[in-house]
Amino acid sequence: MAPPHPFDPLSPAEIEAVVSLVKKAHGEGLLFHVVTAQEPRKAAMTAWLAAPAVAPRPARVAEVVVISNPSGTVYDGLVSLDESKILSWEQLEGEQPIILMEELQHVEEVVRKDPAVIEQCVLSGIAREDMHKVYCDPWTIGYDERFGNKVRLQQALMYYRPDIDNTQYQYPLDFCPIYDGNKDAIVAIDIPKQRRPLQLFAPLDYHHIAQYKRGGFRKDLKPINITQPEGVSFGIDGNIVSWQNFKFHLGFNYREGVVFNNITFNDQGNERDLFYRMSLVEMVVPYGNPEHPHQRKHAFDLGEYGAGYMANSLSLGCDCKGSISYIDAAMPTRVGGVRTIKNAICIHEEDDGILFKHTDFRDDSTIVTRARKLIVQSIFTAANYEYAVQWIFHQDGTIEPNIRLTGILNTYVLLPGEDTHGWGTQVYPGVNAHNHQHLFCMRINPNLDGGHQNSVFLSDACASEEPVGSAGNYYGNGFYAKRTRLETTGEGATDYDWTTMRTWDMVNESKIHPYSGKAASYKLVSREVPQLLPKEGSLVWKRAAFARHTMHVTKYADDQLYPAGRHVPQTSGEPSKGLPEWIGDGKDSIVNTDIVLWHTFGLTHFPAPEDYPVMPAEPMMLLLRPRHFFLSNPVMDVPPSYSITPSQVLAKKDVYDATDKMSKLVVSSSGSCCSKL
Amino acid sequence: MAPPHPFDPLSPAEIEAVVSLVKKAHGEGLLFHVVTAQEPRKAAMTAWLAAPAVAPRPARVAEVVVISNPSGTVYDGLVSLDESKILSWEQLEGEQPIILMEELQHVEEVVRKDPAVIEQCVLSGIAREDMHKVYCDPWTIGYDERFGNKVRLQQALMYYRPDIDNTQYQYPLDFCPIYDGNKDAIVAIDIPKQRRPLQLFAPLDYHHIAQYKRGGFRKDLKPINITQPEGVSFGIDGNIVSWQNFKFHLGFNYREGVVFNNITFNDQGNERDLFYRMSLVEMVVPYGNPEHPHQRKHAFDLGEYGAGYMANSLSLGCDCKGSISYIDAAMPTRVGGVRTIKNAICIHEEDDGILFKHTDFRDDSTIVTRARKLIVQSIFTAANYEYAVQWIFHQDGTIEPNIRLTGILNTYVLLPGEDTHGWGTQVYPGVNAHNHQHLFCMRINPNLDGGHQNSVFLSDACASEEPVGSAGNYYGNGFYAKRTRLETTGEGATDYDWTTMRTWDMVNESKIHPYSGKAASYKLVSREVPQLLPKEGSLVWKRAAFARHTMHVTKYADDQLYPAGRHVPQTSGEPSKGLPEWIGDGKDSIVNTDIVLWHTFGLTHFPAPEDYPVMPAEPMMLLLRPRHFFLSNPVMDVPPSYSITPSQVLAKKDVYDATDKMSKLVVSSSGSCCSKL
Repeated sequence: MAPPHPFDPLSPAEIEAVVSLVKKAHGEGLLFHVVTAQEPRKAAMTAWLAAPAVAPRPARVAEVVVISNPSGTVYDGLVSLDESKILSWEQLEGEQPIILMEELQHVEEVVRKDPAVIEQCVLSGIAREDMHKVYCDPWTIGYDERFGNKVRLQQALMYYRPDIDNTQYQYPLDFCPIYDGNKDAIVAIDIPKQRRPLQLFAPLDYHHIAQYKRGGFRKDLKPINITQPEGVSFGIDGNIVSWQNFKFHLGFNYREGVVFNNITFNDQGNERDLFYRMSLVEMVVPYGNPEHPHQRKHAFDLGEYGAGYMANSLSLGCDCKGSISYIDAAMPTRVGGVRTIKNAICIHEEDDGILFKHTDFRDDSTIVTRARKLIVQSIFTAANYEYAVQWIFHQDGTIEPNIRLTGILNTYVLLPGEDTHGWGTQVYPGVNAHNHQHLFCMRINPNLDGGHQNSVFLSDACASEEPVGSAGNYYGNGFYAKRTRLETTGEGATDYDWTTMRTWDMVNESKIHPYSGKAASYKLVSREVPQLLPKEGSLVWKRAAFARHTMHVTKYADDQLYPAGRHVPQTSGEPSKGLPEWIGDGKDSIVNTDIVLWHTFGLTHFPAPEDYPVMPAEPMMLLLRPRHFFLSNPVMDVPPSYSITPSQVLAKKDVYDATDKMSKLVVSSSGSCCSKL
Repeated sequence: MAPPHPFDPLSPAEIEAVVSLVKKAHGEGLLFHVVTAQEPRKAAMTAWLAAPAVAPRPARVAEVVVISNPSGTVYDGLVSLDESKILSWEQLEGEQPIILMEELQHVEEVVRKDPAVIEQCVLSGIAREDMHKVYCDPWTIGYDERFGNKVRLQQALMYYRPDIDNTQYQYPLDFCPIYDGNKDAIVAIDIPKQRRPLQLFAPLDYHHIAQYKRGGFRKDLKPINITQPEGVSFGIDGNIVSWQNFKFHLGFNYREGVVFNNITFNDQGNERDLFYRMSLVEMVVPYGNPEHPHQRKHAFDLGEYGAGYMANSLSLGCDCKGSISYIDAAMPTRVGGVRTIKNAICIHEEDDGILFKHTDFRDDSTIVTRARKLIVQSIFTAANYEYAVQWIFHQDGTIEPNIRLTGILNTYVLLPGEDTHGWGTQVYPGVNAHNHQHLFCMRINPNLDGGHQNSVFLSDACASEEPVGSAGNYYGNGFYAKRTRLETTGEGATDYDWTTMRTWDMVNESKIHPYSGKAASYKLVSREVPQLLPKEGSLVWKRAAFARHTMHVTKYADDQLYPAGRHVPQTSGEPSKGLPEWIGDGKDSIVNTDIVLWHTFGLTHFPAPEDYPVMPAEPMMLLLRPRHFFLSNPVMDVPPSYSITPSQVLAKKDVYDATDKMSKLVVSSSGSCCSKL
């Protein structure tokens, strides 16, 4: 069997091999929190990519993070798969590894049996014998200064289901048990001063059984069938995907979910580098209710739980339509087995409307060409929320990260007549959905046109500095793109500016366009860029330093992947982990070197009843667009639907007609008026 | 035959009737620039809509604007179709009506024969006998203080085509003839101080013949077929379109193109008003090169040329895919005939990915429901540019205006080695594409929940005012939506603010949501909102007053439709027409009354070679989203693809499975690795 591509995720056999080596060396009583492929060292990897037949294959190394049971000691190690040996093994102090679904699931059992929790449930109005109707969403505690980070804690957000099929989020409870994973016990309960007993309003559920009771489903939606009788236009070879001049390695890990490596674009036979690596690397969801203990609700869904660990198994014709390829993901289980997430990634094409069109008004010559897009999708469920993360590739070289937020609001109980004080919204009687932000961090390591020598420029649309009436701007209409090169990591910390519709350009300054005289670049166009609303010096601000600015730029270093730190649960933010450590005094040059962009974008969500009991997807997108990169429009060789030149209009012949013969004309129901069909 | 709906465009027979009445009264020598239905007076119309069987049918009136030939006198009149008589007839002074395609097309003929133009062509390097290879895009002159607005002028942007099938925009000429429509002659030529002769580099054309010569089309795109074997989910009755609880009147006129009237939403049997009228009403495309005479390039494409007059005739399976309905548009010709734009509007549905999804991590209960969208599209060609304007309706009540910009850049000649000074980009040898903005103005007249009593609030995401460590914000995470009611038309002039991710909420303050306690609203989420870059006091700033702010709000008044004035060509901006006139001293109340929102959004475009010779479509979108309007999520009755409750997971039965059986699994080409399919 061929060796794995160095970027490949660990196979099930590799996970098993790593676990076996670790158990042999360190005993059976280990809980496996991370068993994942270490990102190949870049120097070795780029040498290999440049000459795979000649250069040594980069070392195949696994990262392993375990908790020793029952001591709770945490170890962080590296295991060589090539040499079948442990390369390093370090005991951590005051750092908590990523929390596992298995840990989360377990807390509900503990909570149901805990006498103090039962007492609180009774106080809330739940019968003692109904504890099987009590549920909790355990979250890592975030950080709670009363406990620090040497104990492994979860906070249990409490709910009730009168019936097993009821949505628990409509029956939140007002207290919050704290679970100690080392003791396997509830060690405290946060009880608010103002008590809010269970509010038992009629359920509003979203499953089909509930909808049947409300009168069933609408019957006026006719099916849309999407078929590709000749197959798809993309190819998959191992984890290498190629489509419409793009080629990339598609990886997947426990934490980031989908990872793109070595994205290239075949520019008329010349395979040009675009991005060495691109992925979502972190996110934070701060909630805006300042009352204790809601400040602890600020999930780092990637660093604390893992987009890979939480990935949905996607289903044919359900999460996507058309002709779809899937890739599975292999994850370790806590005891050291392998769990396969079937269909963790889906890959498919969609028609994308008009790619370009022009009609000459004087001679009726026309061209219209339809666009195609490739969608690589993974969906993860973070307790109540769903994140459908799509990476969309466009034929013109544009890459569009696109996220749809759906799922269910996090909720808290509200008394009749109680004021939310503006920190939340009563979306249903007794249900208070708190304000929150979803702030994602995308990490981009460009290697535009090879050489790993890129720079970043701010591009700001600015009016001419010269006044109206002056010789240089007499009519006052002059404007230009002001470009400012970011020189150091300190300067790299930059914010959006709507007044100039700021974009960030990643540039290879050595590749000058022969026509425009400007350097080859990709422009980041991103408009959903809320500021971090937790204040400077706040708990969230300290822990989520990446979110303090729209953009940070660092010089590439191996292992600098996670901007809120490698081990995120229970970090205090004193000092802030990750990005601030790497930026340090801010004096590192980021000019013409191997750079990494850390872009924070997202949404601020003030809930409304329309979001309840399940949220219609809220879309957001950003664009990475080639500028001065291609000699000309790179999609002129996409077959048009219709094309006719001026001379052909005159000659009435030789029209290029590839219009879609499957499309149908629909005659309107009345058809009476002369101006209708 | 039933009378037309009062919102209906004029039928061909009505246009003919109006022309005939006018000719009878005012003679044959008239040129018809506008023959269009007057928007019904709102008081009469709302009375009729409320009780169509009882209330009097609103008067059917046509607006007519003519130029008397050869005097050039302009008349603006109203004609009653009910009474077959002219209601008013006013002579205009210093106002120029909209320019017609017929006028534009004619200038090219004049230019080719004009001795002074021929002389300039020869100076540029064109043989005297090659004048048939000389082309021009005539634009209205905008405003030129040397000529004022009592003469009717066009500026001819000059190009050359070595071959009839070459794209002229790659061979721009450096001089600009000015055509006087009253004299039917070239009356001046603007000649730059620095001469730039024709730059005859090899052509780069976009039609299929040129692509054949470059090696033909890519062959790796497999067809995607989209079919609706059971038909479509929308209905069309006359101009009334209904789909998924939405209902609206779909109008079309010479100027705005598509117009929506009386948009309602059937909320569980209750037909609730949303918007009385919505459309694009104006746009301006200022170019950023301050050198004379480029300041005159700032097209008001709607007010000066008309999105309706310039509308493409759309083709089946070419501009759209699937099952498509079309609506034709009837326009007057200049001499008073009727021109039918076949398929001026297309209407079709598309699958829209996931509408909502949730999986419970503890019990594997799941629901996933797919979304559908309805797209109403019109595409217009403004000389070089194409604007594909889509109005997308979503099942959850969201309305998404979505515009794709494509077509060809406006270009000017550049000498070898010449510096663009940052005002443009050399996109191809000898071709300078100037910086420009596309600023659209959308007019929204909400009537949320009836009564025509709405207000507008700014909604700003703000951190709690209380400091970190204070009792009210101890952990510093408090944040809320600060809402500020705009009280007067003066206050209504507001700008975007990225630091608070500002939105504008249209609100019916009398309709309080029973759960949230907040008033029924639609939120405008719009992020592509560049500032007008021509400076305060500049020519463009004076003429395009609507673009000075992201938002203006006025009190509704009949006939206040066009924010840069009713007759836009050759306005001087002294004083500014339209919005500033209506806002006046800014003291009119806009609280709980019939209000109109004027929203400016768009793009600033710094050209790059990728945009040449034809531009891959650049997308932009905004959202109008219901908030506190529906009792709960309004799409729970959309049939899911898949739904299973917790009890069904346990019982392993009764799953709701309507997954798409047309979708196909694609097995990857290698299929070798265990973690792949």
